[in-house]
Amino acid sequence: MSSTHIVSIYDEELKYLSRRISEMGGTAEQMVADSVRALVSADAALAQKVISEDVILDNAERQINEKAIVTIAKRQPMAADLREIMGTIRIAAELERVGDLGKNTAKRVIAVQSSGMPRKLARGLEHLAELALMQLKEVLDVFATRSVDKAKAIRERDDEIDAIYTSLFRELLTYMMEDPRNITPCTHLLFCAKNIERIGDHATNIAETIYYMATGSQPEGERPKDDTSTSVVTADVSEASE
Amino acid sequence: MSSTHIVSIYDEELKYLSRRISEMGGTAEQMVADSVRALVSADAALAQKVISEDVILDNAERQINEKAIVTIAKRQPMAADLREIMGTIRIAAELERVGDLGKNTAKRVIAVQSSGMPRKLARGLEHLAELALMQLKEVLDVFATRSVDKAKAIRERDDEIDAIYTSLFRELLTYMMEDPRNITPCTHLLFCAKNIERIGDHATNIAETIYYMATGSQPEGERPKDDTSTSVVTADVSEASE
Repeated sequence: MSSTHIVSIYDEELKYLSRRISEMGGTAEQMVADSVRALVSADAALAQKVISEDVILDNAERQINEKAIVTIAKRQPMAADLREIMGTIRIAAELERVGDLGKNTAKRVIAVQSSGMPRKLARGLEHLAELALMQLKEVLDVFATRSVDKAKAIRERDDEIDAIYTSLFRELLTYMMEDPRNITPCTHLLFCAKNIERIGDHATNIAETIYYMATGSQPEGERPKDDTSTSVVTADVSEASE
Repeated sequence: MSSTHIVSIYDEELKYLSRRISEMGGTAEQMVADSVRALVSADAALAQKVISEDVILDNAERQINEKAIVTIAKRQPMAADLREIMGTIRIAAELERVGDLGKNTAKRVIAVQSSGMPRKLARGLEHLAELALMQLKEVLDVFATRSVDKAKAIRERDDEIDAIYTSLFRELLTYMMEDPRNITPCTHLLFCAKNIERIGDHATNIAETIYYMATGSQPEGERPKDDTSTSVVTADVSEASE
């Protein structure tokens, strides 16, 4: 067997891993988009579909891990190739977690559905999801092209998602203060909003991993601040609900 | 250089990785315990200490990853040794995440502190944290001894944590319905409780990883159900607050 032949099998293995990551990314995106659609339109059947799809990502992650480890053991790659495989494992874990967040949102659809959701709130959630999904889509494109500069840009864009999340957080508190009957559904919506906000963090983690795969080091500079809603304090009802 | 000598350097490298994981585990445990203590006793200085310690785990995870990858590249380990190193990387990521959850709880101390916390609620949170920390401690002991049977037992114990979390979730909703002034602090407490509940999930992930390191396969059987509070629906105030 010529060495070119061995190299080409190895390339095939790396391509296989990349393809599986792209597939996982597509499934995760779809699950998140569907979960938010199910939430906003109180669609229990769609929510159930999302919940049942979680196993696809669990299996994909396990298969990627197994393939990655077999590849390392057989090919004993050095430097860049080893980083490539290690990065793949890490990205698969991030995407599996994005699917979990979609599933968790879907699981709350029934608890939210009883109360009709105010239009403004639904728009806020949709907007948050749009931004998070855009970030996820971009990072998957960067994965396909391995553009280091773009990977850095994505990492710096989490602030916008955080600002919208914090404003949704405040809005949900206001609804809860206006009417105690809103408390239970809005609590579930708070967790849904948090799930969506977390997707941005996972996209950022993936961007950092791509940067590492290409360069062998972590991106420099402060990582964007996480969730500023942790310090939201509303003194009383009148102040909060204006 | 004799082959015994090479093996002994390699053993040293594996021991180094194990030691760093144990250290990370100790730091993560301490951060979580301190964050809950800060929350229950409204101790802003302790909360600040927890927040500042997060960087310790970030750095430790990065150092473990670097060392692990260098070890794979230099030693080109096969089968069990490769799994050992890959497992170490995964456990470091789980522990880093546990530290993040402690930090996030600590960040909410200021927002909660304004309102005095009912004694019953504080006890519930402390009990939840005790169980989660016990699970984390046990799994770190299992890591030190590599006992596969114990790893399986830990994985099956998440149900108790979930039951307490769901009962805390209901209790917090009740407080919110009783008085709108409770809504903001109780919302932050909901997230704190969720953070603590998540630690149980990470302990379970670590237990699964240890099982994988020892056997090369995933533990069989259903993974314990996650968070059943997602379906909590309380119809109205009088029903929920009795």
